[in-house]
This record gives sequence, C-alpha cells and structure tokens, in this order.
Amino acid sequence: MTEADGRTTAAVSLDGGWRRLPAPHLSAYLAAFHDRPVAGLAGEEIEGRHMALPLPEPGKVICCGLNYADHIAETGRDLPAHPTLFAKYADTLTGPAAEIRLPAGLDVDWEAELAVVVGAEIRGASRAEAAAAIWGYTIANDVSVRDWQRRTLQWFQGKAWDRTTPVGPVVVTADELDPAAGLQVVCRVDGVERQRGDTRSLVFDAAALVAYVSTFTRLRPGDLVLTGTPGGVGMAMTPPAYLTDGAVLETEISGIGVLRNRIAFTKE
Amino acid sequence: MTEADGRTTAAVSLDGGWRRLPAPHLSAYLAAFHDRPVAGLAGEEIEGRHMALPLPEPGKVICCGLNYADHIAETGRDLPAHPTLFAKYADTLTGPAAEIRLPAGLDVDWEAELAVVVGAEIRGASRAEAAAAIWGYTIANDVSVRDWQRRTLQWFQGKAWDRTTPVGPVVVTADELDPAAGLQVVCRVDGVERQRGDTRSLVFDAAALVAYVSTFTRLRPGDLVLTGTPGGVGMAMTPPAYLTDGAVLETEISGIGVLRNRIAFTKE
Repeated sequence: MTEADGRTTAAVSLDGGWRRLPAPHLSAYLAAFHDRPVAGLAGEEIEGRHMALPLPEPGKVICCGLNYADHIAETGRDLPAHPTLFAKYADTLTGPAAEIRLPAGLDVDWEAELAVVVGAEIRGASRAEAAAAIWGYTIANDVSVRDWQRRTLQWFQGKAWDRTTPVGPVVVTADELDPAAGLQVVCRVDGVERQRGDTRSLVFDAAALVAYVSTFTRLRPGDLVLTGTPGGVGMAMTPPAYLTDGAVLETEISGIGVLRNRIAFTKE
Repeated sequence: MTEADGRTTAAVSLDGGWRRLPAPHLSAYLAAFHDRPVAGLAGEEIEGRHMALPLPEPGKVICCGLNYADHIAETGRDLPAHPTLFAKYADTLTGPAAEIRLPAGLDVDWEAELAVVVGAEIRGASRAEAAAAIWGYTIANDVSVRDWQRRTLQWFQGKAWDRTTPVGPVVVTADELDPAAGLQVVCRVDGVERQRGDTRSLVFDAAALVAYVSTFTRLRPGDLVLTGTPGGVGMAMTPPAYLTDGAVLETEISGIGVLRNRIAFTKE
C-alpha cells in the first residue's frame, strides 16, 4: 500500500490492522519470503493512504480466455478441451484505483477476472502440486482494446496496452479463500452491473490452469495467472457497448474487494 | 560470451579481437549503457570459450507472425493489413549452441527469424524514431510446438516453452547491417535447407514493427522484436515434417552468423 510519504510497502492485515512487511510490494516480498509464514514477518502497524498495485513486477502474467460457460456461449464457441492462453507483461498492470488512460477512439471493453498469485517456483506440476503452489487470489480486469484484439488472429495486441489491467486491491491468501466454494465475480460500469459469474463454473479452475501453464514454462513466486471472464462483456451486447470517456469501472469479487478505475481517453 | 571460468561477459568485436564490455551480458549492458558508443567502453582483449545467449533478460520478446509473403501463402492466408503479434518471455530463450530439450511426442517445427534488438526506451514512436531506436540485429529460431500452438485459437502455448528459442550468436549493431538491403534468412535441418527468405520481402520491416508495438507498450533497451519467418516450415510440407530426436537445427542470416542447436527429446 501507499503510505503518507508516497512510498509503497507490502503489508499484511492482522487483527483488523495493517502491519508492515519487509519489502516495497508483494512482488519483492514473494521473491524473498514466499516460503515463510506471513504473520512471522509482520512489523509495526501502519496507516496506509491507499492501496497500490500489489504485484508491480511479475515475471509472467498469463491469462486464460474462454473459461466460463456463459462467456463461451456469448462468443458462439463450444466448451474447450484446453485452456486458451495469452500473455501480458508487468507493464500491462495498473493499480486498483488508477485512472486507465487510452487514446480516444478505441473500442475498450471490460473483463472482470479472478487472478491467481503463484507462491512457489514450479515446472511440470501435478494438479496437487499446483494447488499447493497457489499463494493467494486477487482481482483483475482484463480491459481489452477490442478493435486491436480483432485486427489479427492473435489477441495479444488488444490485451497488452500499458497500465490498462487493474489488479488488487489486496491479495487474499489461499488458506482464507476457496474459489471452488463459489466466489461472485462482478463487473459494473457507471454503477450498472454488466457481469456476474461464479467461480464454481470455471471450466479450468485455478489449480488446473497453474498446472497446465507449468507444463511449458516455469512459474515463480509473484507470477499471475488470470482465470478468464464470465459472460456480459460489451462486445457481446446488441449493439456492442464500450467504455466511454470518464466511465467508472468497478470490478468486485466476494471475499477480496473491489477495483474502481476511471477511464480517461487522451487525444495523443 | 562464456569465458574459460564459465562466467559470461558482454564483449565487442573490434579489429578482429573480442574486448570485454562492463556487464555480464548484453541485457545488462544495454540497460546501463545503451546511449554510449560501444567502442568507448571496450576493455581488455579476451579469449571467449563460446558464445552464450547474448540477451538473457529481455523485459519483452514480441514476435510477428505471417510477415513474409511466401510463408503467408503457404498458410493459405491473404497479405495482412496489420502485423500479427504474440509474446514470449525471457525464459523462452536459449543460447546459440544450446541443446533444445522438449518432451518426446510433440510436433516441433522450425521458424528462422531476424530479431531486432531495441536500444532506447520508446513509446508511441514514429517510424523514424523507431528506426533510430534499433540498436542492432541478431538471429532467432521461433521453434514452435505446433500441436500445442493449434490446441486453441491463441498460439502462445505453442510458442513459449522454456529455453526453446535460440538467439545469437552475436548482435550486429544497426550501423553495420541494413536488412532493407537484403539479408538471407536460412534454416537447415540436418544439413538440408528448408527455409530461405530475403529480408527485403518483409511485409512489415524492422522499423515498422518497432513503431507499431510501441503504440501500445513501452519498449526498453534489450527488448527483442522477432520479425517473422519465411516459407518452408515443417507443418506446411506434404506430409508435414517435424524435428526428430537428435536433429541439428541451423539458423543462419548473412552478415550475422549461424545458430546451431541440437534437438533432444526427453521422456519426462
């Protein structure tokens, strides 16, 4: 979180108060201390000013598309045999209350998602190993520039605009949250609910995705795996609807919190 | 390059000898010294043992598919209006003489490519700015796991297997090499030529690709942009042909050098 002096610190919520962790953010914290119990490293209580991007430096941000049955149906596709994956970079991420700035004239859409925070170094993990390697869960909105996403066969160029994927506001550790028990994944645009999904209906759940990705690439503490978005995106509306200048995008998951990001179109 | 003690160092070839640069590899060198003339930083002459991966820590490795007219034709597609882009991570790369290890049973294909090394931090660059930001050129082979690439709509999971994209053996600075003048991009499998393209026939040339990518994401010194592969890949042969256990993959570009990588299938 960001403190009064503008610097950020990793912090842990214990007994209702936020206590300092010995790193400027959770990316650095997990790189150093992923195998240590968090409570043992908690320092003095602090008063944060606001929540910053908790994981600003993931080595990998790997995203799953088409993972909720209702969203797959709205894109007109069949249920998949394998997860559809694409990549983002650390630069793509932004804070839980940050303004999302994009050039005017783009078709900017919303995609509320549960994000998995990896807590161990793994490659070729079984499902059980993958489950054990999940450090926690956070919220992301895979804000997508649809016209660029659809310029070619590959979605990447519509998914990797710098500082357009808000993440946060906190990471809830895996011992405190179970997506298999059913979390509500909700997206609101200017107060109107546009998406509501239940993580019980994920085609590939968190452990399955982490295991699958680890088949081809090493995942490390602080890496993020985004689990896909439920139905209700703007491009599937009739007619399609996209984010407007000044729109307020809220992304909420029960048990984690809410991201609140304003869209700002620039004239560059 | 790797020295006798097994450590790596960045180095520059001047007057026929290799001289030490003050960094363990070109990723670190470019992060610190991208705006300094190389010759001014050259230290004592060294005897390298062999060439290592010159850029082991790029922040971004962004690849263009479908960029040579003949390769586009063999995939049965029309000439594109926009470059098709996908992402790799630093973990995907490997050295110019490294063994490429993959599990047995995959359809592993070759894609010889010219790779652009970015030498400045740029975002929203014009073509001229992008051209000025190109530090040099190297060789890559975008070795692709075709069955995973085609499992879903997104190629990423077939393109991002750890340590499967060889890069090197050297980077030739942009003042010494001009792809627009025509470089031969060649791939041989067990001594048989399978690909030969000319960089004059790129649909999107190096400066165009760098400028396009910088529209949506910041590129930094040491980042790599792969420019796509010419015709002659294995999956387009009749019947399709893939790399076999022990195959020797050679990737050569005139004026840069040659990568020579042996394929080793593992039983894991």
